[in-house]
Amino acid sequence: MIAWKNMDTLAAYEELCAAQRVNLVEAMSGEAGAQRVKSYTVPMGEGLDFNYGARPVDDKILEILEKLAAEAQLSEKYEALYNGEVINTGEKRRVLHHLTRGQLGETVMADGVDKRAFYVEQQEKIADLAKKVHAGEITNVAGEKFTTVVQIGIGGSDLGPRAIYLALENWAKVNGTLKMKAEFISNVDPDDAAGVLNKIDVAHSLFILVSKSGTTLETLTNESFVKDALEKAGLDPAKHMVAVTSETSPLAKNSGYLAAFFMDDYIGGRYSSTSGVGGAVLSLAFGPEVFAQFLDGAAEADALAKNPDMKHNAAMLDALIGVYERNVLGYPTTAVLPYSQAMSRFPAHLQQLDMESNGKSVNRFGEAVNYATGPIIFGEPGTNGQHSFYQLLHQGTNIVPLQFMGFRNSQMGSDVVIQGSTSQQKLCANVAAQIIAFACGKEDEDRNKYFAGGRPSSIIIGDKLTPKALGAILAHFENKVMFQGFVWNVNSFDQEGVQLGKVLAKRVLAHDTDGALKVYSDLLNI
Amino acid sequence: MIAWKNMDTLAAYEELCAAQRVNLVEAMSGEAGAQRVKSYTVPMGEGLDFNYGARPVDDKILEILEKLAAEAQLSEKYEALYNGEVINTGEKRRVLHHLTRGQLGETVMADGVDKRAFYVEQQEKIADLAKKVHAGEITNVAGEKFTTVVQIGIGGSDLGPRAIYLALENWAKVNGTLKMKAEFISNVDPDDAAGVLNKIDVAHSLFILVSKSGTTLETLTNESFVKDALEKAGLDPAKHMVAVTSETSPLAKNSGYLAAFFMDDYIGGRYSSTSGVGGAVLSLAFGPEVFAQFLDGAAEADALAKNPDMKHNAAMLDALIGVYERNVLGYPTTAVLPYSQAMSRFPAHLQQLDMESNGKSVNRFGEAVNYATGPIIFGEPGTNGQHSFYQLLHQGTNIVPLQFMGFRNSQMGSDVVIQGSTSQQKLCANVAAQIIAFACGKEDEDRNKYFAGGRPSSIIIGDKLTPKALGAILAHFENKVMFQGFVWNVNSFDQEGVQLGKVLAKRVLAHDTDGALKVYSDLLNI
Repeated sequence: MIAWKNMDTLAAYEELCAAQRVNLVEAMSGEAGAQRVKSYTVPMGEGLDFNYGARPVDDKILEILEKLAAEAQLSEKYEALYNGEVINTGEKRRVLHHLTRGQLGETVMADGVDKRAFYVEQQEKIADLAKKVHAGEITNVAGEKFTTVVQIGIGGSDLGPRAIYLALENWAKVNGTLKMKAEFISNVDPDDAAGVLNKIDVAHSLFILVSKSGTTLETLTNESFVKDALEKAGLDPAKHMVAVTSETSPLAKNSGYLAAFFMDDYIGGRYSSTSGVGGAVLSLAFGPEVFAQFLDGAAEADALAKNPDMKHNAAMLDALIGVYERNVLGYPTTAVLPYSQAMSRFPAHLQQLDMESNGKSVNRFGEAVNYATGPIIFGEPGTNGQHSFYQLLHQGTNIVPLQFMGFRNSQMGSDVVIQGSTSQQKLCANVAAQIIAFACGKEDEDRNKYFAGGRPSSIIIGDKLTPKALGAILAHFENKVMFQGFVWNVNSFDQEGVQLGKVLAKRVLAHDTDGALKVYSDLLNI
Repeated sequence: MIAWKNMDTLAAYEELCAAQRVNLVEAMSGEAGAQRVKSYTVPMGEGLDFNYGARPVDDKILEILEKLAAEAQLSEKYEALYNGEVINTGEKRRVLHHLTRGQLGETVMADGVDKRAFYVEQQEKIADLAKKVHAGEITNVAGEKFTTVVQIGIGGSDLGPRAIYLALENWAKVNGTLKMKAEFISNVDPDDAAGVLNKIDVAHSLFILVSKSGTTLETLTNESFVKDALEKAGLDPAKHMVAVTSETSPLAKNSGYLAAFFMDDYIGGRYSSTSGVGGAVLSLAFGPEVFAQFLDGAAEADALAKNPDMKHNAAMLDALIGVYERNVLGYPTTAVLPYSQAMSRFPAHLQQLDMESNGKSVNRFGEAVNYATGPIIFGEPGTNGQHSFYQLLHQGTNIVPLQFMGFRNSQMGSDVVIQGSTSQQKLCANVAAQIIAFACGKEDEDRNKYFAGGRPSSIIIGDKLTPKALGAILAHFENKVMFQGFVWNVNSFDQEGVQLGKVLAKRVLAHDTDGALKVYSDLLNI
């Protein structure tokens, strides 16, 4: 029987607060430090390892975190989720994104269908379309192949798919699987759509309109923008556009689109990269086989997250250590730092995933909680960040836990040797060095050159950023966020906090304002 | 006589801590709220206004902040800085980036020359090169025009110039001044250089190597990468490359470059966008006239920042309110939210500018300070952020002060009317709505739909994002960060915190490691 309890009612949390804290500078020193780093590691699927040697925990704290995992029933709650219980209680919805990449438990029937079968069916329809487009069986009116695919969507319909596309674009180029170039239009700022339309050849472009409800104002506005451009170019928009939406939306069964692919209310926007939302654009860009590999990686990570033994469950471990850092140590922010230029937009995706899921002040019963919930997430790729904000991370007055990622090999395999090492070796040497610099610091009589250390980090290490590895990393963070939501007893699957702004924006556009809102509207000439 | 004192020794700071806090929900309500928003505004040059109606201050707190400005001698310190005093005491350097865009005070002589004249001379040399490249007087060996300019640099040699290029690329397109497309290589990750080289036509590309010292490892590595590619294409690198560096660096007077343009130690990387570091790539991309407009905008903001009356000095006001939010209200993070897709990378530039400048724990005498200094900065363009992390900003357990920017007109002028409004109107309506939603919140019996409000923001409002407006905005933030550094009594112009990682990375590459560092190095196969 699952009990949904606030974190501060759990005995293990009380024990955690009272536990002796770790002196990371000491813990990471000498041979003991070396042994610690060797042993504090968990496989996370696809040859990836999650190493938490530099996180601020020791065996005693890990033992308490294991109790917390058990007391908060993290495994049972995950099981309930993937078996189709209504976990998104606010909106009274199941949470089924795991089913887009595998069957973790029982068959989930909803809306009269087997949902796993439904998602697979959509993937197959997408694969079929992609193959026909690549083979030139579906073309523009002139019978010419489409060369570019443009995703029109915002939030979860943009950030995840865009981050994944950028992460694999160069990998696909060198592996000969870049079938079409992808572009993205998201912002209601007209310069976004105009800028993209200005640089592509619309006659050879296929647009994907992504909106679950079919009513997202930004997305519908950008659709009109694109249709207008197609018509001005003498083209028929209906021959250049597909939709990814729900079966009940106005975009479904609509002759304005070449095809429509379906998702449903059980897949939240920020969890939709493995559904048709990511599937259509990524299958068109890279081929459905590559998208299938990406799903396989995610499925493997999902399966590992079932392990009730926290020490063998990277997502659960990452989640619990994060809760310790957030609530006991009081760190409000976490940085995501992939040492991979290809992952340049992955932090922006995780920012949405984490902050929109757990940035809540009420528990799943709508009662205010008395503890901090989701942290603020930001990040940029290394080594770029080293030459930017790392100054504050090393010597500022706030401690920021760090989530590094590093890969032994580059994606493109092109490299040069300078001063005795390749660029890839320099990249990896830098992330190794940073972990130690942050954790151990450095004494110096000149306080300006002194590093206090004690700044925690973990690192995900892989051989190469492939579609499978990326899928596993994506699912790791989705599951981490899910487990943290369980610990904090919040509903990680709604987003009521985005509603008020929408309502007020409509009032501004209707000129139905007064007071300060009217002044701002006037200042902005609306 | 200037006295450099820690903030917590100032009487005004003590008074500030004791002052009655503002209830923002109340202050922003009704007709009084409207009047407040109308009056809490300052011109910041180039038709821009800085509106702080929704920041958590009132007349009483502003009065104390004025005292703090006087007691901390902000105007006197700025004057000392632009008149050439050694403000960067750690490195014993003057701080002269303001001179790259204007003469604010006395002639500054250093290294035997008038520094303003020196910077102007470099700009003229750059303008001359750019004109010759655009006119086809300087070409590749085949006598063909260069069409692409590629900046090779990292940190301040990358983030600012890249953010500015992206902010003006579409503006330049529609204004017919996009002379060359710009690309940027920064990361030591070999996939960065390989990815850029893969998509450009090297035979028609001119590369700018940017490194003040001429020894930045990432940048020299990427130079080799590029030279290798040029040679493999049968081209002479010396005919495709210019350098921006200091006169004493190994890159100066080097036959490996078509030309070299100089900066000096008085311009920190993160403050170098208005020097040759930004000047070369932006003059080549947009023409020197556009770069000159950008400088004019910055110069106007610099001049306004001289006003000792805080209420008429947007940068000083923004700085002091920020200090109040950081130190008295205890907010550790600030979000930068431009409602402009063109400014997509501007938050990343401000992240470096702010966090590298003021992320310090010691004062300018190397003594530990007992108060929080620079905040963590992050941001994404609106409306995209609304569909991502705004959930946490509205309903999370931490309050994050917000720095909005909005423009009445789009850059490209292309727009559509949907549901009775243009995209630009929707964009502006959203930012107006968000300010009120954050400040005022909304009561609701359902706690899940309840917004506490009291979340502060300011907004910079302009007519259009032009080169001049962008220059003024850039200088506003540079000067804001400078004033905050003065209040916190830190040296905002060094970055000792980046050194330790460099030292350790060299040891890793030399296989001179033991303990935990060796384990990480082994895990990463270095």
